[in-house]
Amino acid sequence: MSKGKVVLAYSGGLDTSCILVWLKEQGYDVITYLANIGQDEDFEAARKKAESLGAKKVFIEDLRTEFVEDFIWPAVQANAVYEDRYLLGTAVARPCIARRQVEIARREGAQYVSHGATGKGNDQIRFELTCYALYPEVKIIAPWRIPEFYNRFRGRTDLMEYKHNYFTTFIFIHGIPVPVTPRAPWSMDANLMHISYESGILENPKSRAPADLYLMTKNPEDSPNVQDVLEIEFKKGVPVKVTNMNDGISKNTALDVFSYLNEIGGKHGVGRIDIVENRFIGMKSRGIYETPGGTVLLKAHLDIETFTMDKEVRRIKQGLGIKFSELVYNGFWYSPECNFVRHCIAKSQENVEGKVQLSVLKGQVYILGRESPKSLYNEELVSMDVQGDYDPCDASGFIRINAVRLREHHRLQGLSSTKQ
Amino acid sequence: MSKGKVVLAYSGGLDTSCILVWLKEQGYDVITYLANIGQDEDFEAARKKAESLGAKKVFIEDLRTEFVEDFIWPAVQANAVYEDRYLLGTAVARPCIARRQVEIARREGAQYVSHGATGKGNDQIRFELTCYALYPEVKIIAPWRIPEFYNRFRGRTDLMEYKHNYFTTFIFIHGIPVPVTPRAPWSMDANLMHISYESGILENPKSRAPADLYLMTKNPEDSPNVQDVLEIEFKKGVPVKVTNMNDGISKNTALDVFSYLNEIGGKHGVGRIDIVENRFIGMKSRGIYETPGGTVLLKAHLDIETFTMDKEVRRIKQGLGIKFSELVYNGFWYSPECNFVRHCIAKSQENVEGKVQLSVLKGQVYILGRESPKSLYNEELVSMDVQGDYDPCDASGFIRINAVRLREHHRLQGLSSTKQ
Amino acid sequence: MSKGKVVLAYSGGLDTSCILVWLKEQGYDVITYLANIGQDEDFEAARKKAESLGAKKVFIEDLRTEFVEDFIWPAVQANAVYEDRYLLGTAVARPCIARRQVEIARREGAQYVSHGATGKGNDQIRFELTCYALYPEVKIIAPWRIPEFYNRFRGRTDLMEYKHNYFTTFIFIHGIPVPVTPRAPWSMDANLMHISYESGILENPKSRAPADLYLMTKNPEDSPNVQDVLEIEFKKGVPVKVTNMNDGISKNTALDVFSYLNEIGGKHGVGRIDIVENRFIGMKSRGIYETPGGTVLLKAHLDIETFTMDKEVRRIKQGLGIKFSELVYNGFWYSPECNFVRHCIAKSQENVEGKVQLSVLKGQVYILGRESPKSLYNEELVSMDVQGDYDPCDASGFIRINAVRLREHHRLQGLSSTKQ
Amino acid sequence: MSKGKVVLAYSGGLDTSCILVWLKEQGYDVITYLANIGQDEDFEAARKKAESLGAKKVFIEDLRTEFVEDFIWPAVQANAVYEDRYLLGTAVARPCIARRQVEIARREGAQYVSHGATGKGNDQIRFELTCYALYPEVKIIAPWRIPEFYNRFRGRTDLMEYKHNYFTTFIFIHGIPVPVTPRAPWSMDANLMHISYESGILENPKSRAPADLYLMTKNPEDSPNVQDVLEIEFKKGVPVKVTNMNDGISKNTALDVFSYLNEIGGKHGVGRIDIVENRFIGMKSRGIYETPGGTVLLKAHLDIETFTMDKEVRRIKQGLGIKFSELVYNGFWYSPECNFVRHCIAKSQENVEGKVQLSVLKGQVYILGRESPKSLYNEELVSMDVQGDYDPCDASGFIRINAVRLREHHRLQGLSSTKQ
Repeated sequence: MSKGKVVLAYSGGLDTSCILVWLKEQGYDVITYLANIGQDEDFEAARKKAESLGAKKVFIEDLRTEFVEDFIWPAVQANAVYEDRYLLGTAVARPCIARRQVEIARREGAQYVSHGATGKGNDQIRFELTCYALYPEVKIIAPWRIPEFYNRFRGRTDLMEYKHNYFTTFIFIHGIPVPVTPRAPWSMDANLMHISYESGILENPKSRAPADLYLMTKNPEDSPNVQDVLEIEFKKGVPVKVTNMNDGISKNTALDVFSYLNEIGGKHGVGRIDIVENRFIGMKSRGIYETPGGTVLLKAHLDIETFTMDKEVRRIKQGLGIKFSELVYNGFWYSPECNFVRHCIAKSQENVEGKVQLSVLKGQVYILGRESPKSLYNEELVSMDVQGDYDPCDASGFIRINAVRLREHHRLQGLSSTKQ
Repeated sequence: MSKGKVVLAYSGGLDTSCILVWLKEQGYDVITYLANIGQDEDFEAARKKAESLGAKKVFIEDLRTEFVEDFIWPAVQANAVYEDRYLLGTAVARPCIARRQVEIARREGAQYVSHGATGKGNDQIRFELTCYALYPEVKIIAPWRIPEFYNRFRGRTDLMEYKHNYFTTFIFIHGIPVPVTPRAPWSMDANLMHISYESGILENPKSRAPADLYLMTKNPEDSPNVQDVLEIEFKKGVPVKVTNMNDGISKNTALDVFSYLNEIGGKHGVGRIDIVENRFIGMKSRGIYETPGGTVLLKAHLDIETFTMDKEVRRIKQGLGIKFSELVYNGFWYSPECNFVRHCIAKSQENVEGKVQLSVLKGQVYILGRESPKSLYNEELVSMDVQGDYDPCDASGFIRINAVRLREHHRLQGLSSTKQ
Repeated sequence: MSKGKVVLAYSGGLDTSCILVWLKEQGYDVITYLANIGQDEDFEAARKKAESLGAKKVFIEDLRTEFVEDFIWPAVQANAVYEDRYLLGTAVARPCIARRQVEIARREGAQYVSHGATGKGNDQIRFELTCYALYPEVKIIAPWRIPEFYNRFRGRTDLMEYKHNYFTTFIFIHGIPVPVTPRAPWSMDANLMHISYESGILENPKSRAPADLYLMTKNPEDSPNVQDVLEIEFKKGVPVKVTNMNDGISKNTALDVFSYLNEIGGKHGVGRIDIVENRFIGMKSRGIYETPGGTVLLKAHLDIETFTMDKEVRRIKQGLGIKFSELVYNGFWYSPECNFVRHCIAKSQENVEGKVQLSVLKGQVYILGRESPKSLYNEELVSMDVQGDYDPCDASGFIRINAVRLREHHRLQGLSSTKQ
Repeated sequence: MSKGKVVLAYSGGLDTSCILVWLKEQGYDVITYLANIGQDEDFEAARKKAESLGAKKVFIEDLRTEFVEDFIWPAVQANAVYEDRYLLGTAVARPCIARRQVEIARREGAQYVSHGATGKGNDQIRFELTCYALYPEVKIIAPWRIPEFYNRFRGRTDLMEYKHNYFTTFIFIHGIPVPVTPRAPWSMDANLMHISYESGILENPKSRAPADLYLMTKNPEDSPNVQDVLEIEFKKGVPVKVTNMNDGISKNTALDVFSYLNEIGGKHGVGRIDIVENRFIGMKSRGIYETPGGTVLLKAHLDIETFTMDKEVRRIKQGLGIKFSELVYNGFWYSPECNFVRHCIAKSQENVEGKVQLSVLKGQVYILGRESPKSLYNEELVSMDVQGDYDPCDASGFIRINAVRLREHHRLQGLSSTKQ
């Protein structure tokens, strides 16, 4: 008797392969689902592996365009950065993946979903809050939080050994060779936006990351010493076109634009950070990230936004962007408040339009200039050489009125100090 | 009959030399005051120039240490950044300069102070709010806002011609040769923290800054391709020591530490930005800044702060830091609210202590690792390989309770959509 | 030769009558404009007075409905309160008045607008920022800031005497009797939303307001000791209907609803406050306000909003409401940021719908109950007597995860104190 | 064999009596702890009851003074209000109670603490976060979240029946009669600051609260129609003295001042609210509160604070106060961020000093006047009748500079609309 259907977010890797087999052991019909969000993966090999391990159905879904348009673009509009540094590459991917997982579960009549996220991390929360928000009656199986599972495979070292044994046995039964390759001494998560590295030898916050860790960006020491100059065109706060001024190459669909920025950013080693961050569950963790295209876009968007947006609107929007970043980091993409904030931020972007020129070199992005039909920049008004529609005498009154309060405060302090 | 004494913030440059002469013409006794806040200047030449132009007294004050300790350090603690990019190098210098100016004015019995800041800029506000806050009854003469002055010298081009003529005449009377050198087609402001460039050909926001504009940082294309590795030690959120791990050079006074970070940052081309920013008076302006040491410190401080500070304290402090940045940018360093915010931020920094290792290369700063006796990072707790004092089952409840609200919201939406 | 046309915001009172005459003396063609925003005024008498004093044209405009719908309703949606107490009755009226003034000025080809607001107050700013925002090239004549005017009429005492004399003379020329009545020893400003009282004997912050000062609300000591019970129905965060449950009286247009709430609130002495507030120009002033209908609505709206709005949306919206209140107080109704904030707040109100029952008695409003088709309240979920779709065990995990950080912090403190 | 010692927060009521017996059944040595925080309780009867039910030790602790000084006073300084209405009377009591509970547990060598808070409420969180923060290794027994307990006693109705039966049996063994009195059809929580009412018939958000529900405040319809006039003196933002101007009665210790304000507030029916609020766990609940003294103090403190605090400091402090309120509501009194916020708020109160006069009548508090040696109110500066140290011409410049941005924005909009 089957316990029912479960849709497992399957990565093709060690952990979720192991979970697949374990779920089957427990009596579930397992449907695997693998989202293509731009990670470097042999999807057909993963399909075969899943089938060979006993998946009843295998879904492999190309979500790259919707990942860029529905998740990365709002983050660009928001200048989304968590704790002043992290561009949220994993956090924006999770609701994208889980949204489709839930769609499949509903379509396939599955009451259960499952994933391989660990019990100490943020991803379990991001996956599950998305699932609960979009499919409130769903039941979630998180093996890394189930003692009978995790006590057998405590930590990744044990898991590797177990898997090896298990699969050895397994091969004999089904006759399918499953390669067990030695793994890097850290865990990583890759998608179109970034690769993150954590755990293992990186858990010591003092130890340096190995130079060969990075897969998405060239080491800046080895990157070319000749800059690429790009022109990025924005409409409503999102890039609609990128042109390389060196060679004239140009892209104009969401996926192409973002992929090309990854390519150029990666070539020049842009977007590497090594941080200690605060997880939602209240512990600090050390993470290393490389976000080449996202970093280029963040700088370009900041530039065109300030060029076209009113100062005070931007100040309010800055606060909303920080809120958005926290919400996304914590897994609340599909929440009423994140919907609300996204709506407000999108509203603020209506006039964020124009072209930014920038150069990319040796890990850095340099803004070179910008232009916009919606600019609020008034060259004549600000000029030191012409007066424009501005009377400098007004500034005297402005300053003196701003000083009223400061002078009053001094008066009080004076009275206080006199008494003492 | 003298109209009284005026203390003029004198830079030794064209504008304030001109103002000096003009104030004398108007009948004031002019005391010039030149603050050494680390700019590259021939102070003795400036003294002679001021004396030759008729200054009654000349004060040249070395404020470098107090500039670092009283103004840059609080900005470091605050992670002070205006509009997500500008490190406020000019804004933090102004209250430092004006504070001493007011002290001199009080000491010399001067009722007036004067400065050469223009009528469209932020600096007039920063100077004057400081003066009014610390010397409420002071009278301020801002020639660039006085029509009879600025109508004679409309814009800097005219000023240059006028000055030339005037000084030619002047030379004949006093017999002192005053060199009138051709100037760059932009204006700049330099101090220990940064150099800013604006106006002139930079007013066109699309035009690129010339490669030879930068004086404080090497062009990254020409900077060495070999990194310097630094270890910066913090106590209470400010650096107390820097050591170069390549050669063992070490500095441990405020001024030495900051100067050395400038040197290394400058050597590697760190801290250049080209932005359009929003002035307090409501116009957008284009500015180019280079802040080598400040940029290194911002990155290092962000790292040690997150390592040692509670997540939620940091979130509140982040908001205070943004507020601080706006206040400082707008000239309110000496205001009750900025005092309050500085106090709160300083309080938050009590445990921000430890060492950050970082490398500097080709315009970038890379954090390599960190350690601290006050760290809130718990390697065992966060480890993927050991359980630590943590029960992963708890996360299920945590997530489900966080989902209560999201599921309720879905329920309402479901009801709504059913009705429609 | 006329200097041109000026549209004067004319109140029919002493100050603006005086300004009318003075503007004529200065050579302007004066068009008076008197907005009916619900104040108790003999508009026809004002028209005659203006004509008799030399107005070229007289506009008397009934803005009551647009005042309620375009200005009071957004304030209700925002729960707009300045400095925790003031409901902004004057502040929301000013942009309403000035908007029409500017329309008239454009239509009549007038380059100038003028008003009788004083040079120390907020209203000058509210009027003028609205004018500049909607008619950027307009020129504003603010006689109370023009020395030749205000030096003649320093303070209201002098003005009264001057006016008396002037008008005596004036009467002889035109033969029109202009009554100069003795005035209360304070100034007041009335509209549909509130009456404010300030200045004169109220300037002493310790002195109590006279019992007979209030015109819009009954003294609570003298108000009935029998409550009225109202049911207010909201849609999209604004009231669409009010019903008196005592007598069945019901109103359902914006103006009628608000007027009726004023009537009932006034009858029961609701909405009186005596505060010291901070003006935009940086001085503290003492103001006394009575806002009967607005106070009833604030309480009712708070209730229905919390009933129907998600907690976290509300938290963000609360911050936007505070920002809105500051902007409106400071005169920035017609600013990009206030437009933005209003848009966001309106978005938050989409589901703020339902009925609130409340009683009004002796200066107080008591919420009695509420119901809504859009409620997020789930009686079964929250019940102490049934479990609902809720597992109390989840709360253990929720609490323990929330405690992770607190326990870590304690660990650090313990280490610190051990060392000391 | 005993499982160990448990300190039970014992109320003397039905639930915790039942828990006491159940814990004993489970094999724990039960120490009961009953905090006197001002609730109306027969403490000696509770002691006897606990002893008769098998408590090994009974602690009854008078925490009233520390409750006022350490918990209510910081809330007064913060103007603490949750969701614009609730004064947090229960939320501030919980950390006070749990702090002592943990002290007793440490002193008595108890590894366990227990409480009777339900699994759907906020109090479980407030109790337990305090315990974990102050005693990280403690183990918490929350019977209402333990299925074997709550399945036996699902809901309060069942509990009452069970208790009756159980105690009948129990009486036979020990010979002690335990009276089971009929209960009100809602639950209530009382302390010095307030009484809250919820659950039972109040769970229907539309139904009105019965008139006889309130125990702490007189029904305003029945309260005297003669006001009491009080003068409250503040130092550092907390009341140090209250004087009744009608009869000269005066109080000057923390507990006496607060109790007297409760007496007068209660006599006049002050501080009743009926709200729907958002619990931390994400559900909405309906609560009715009466907070007589706290409401009087909130109004008085708001008045003296605005009188003595700089405008911009207050604005920042207002945000901190909202944050404080959320933290306290959610149970984070003993958290790093709440410590930080309390410190900052206390700093802001240094000059909040002076006397406020107010009247209390029929459910309302009316501020009459205020005076302070630290006032920032400048009667001359603000006067309409004298100029003070203020030049109204300055306001023209102030307004025009503030309009620069608005006019620029209009220019852009004009360009946009022309194009369309």
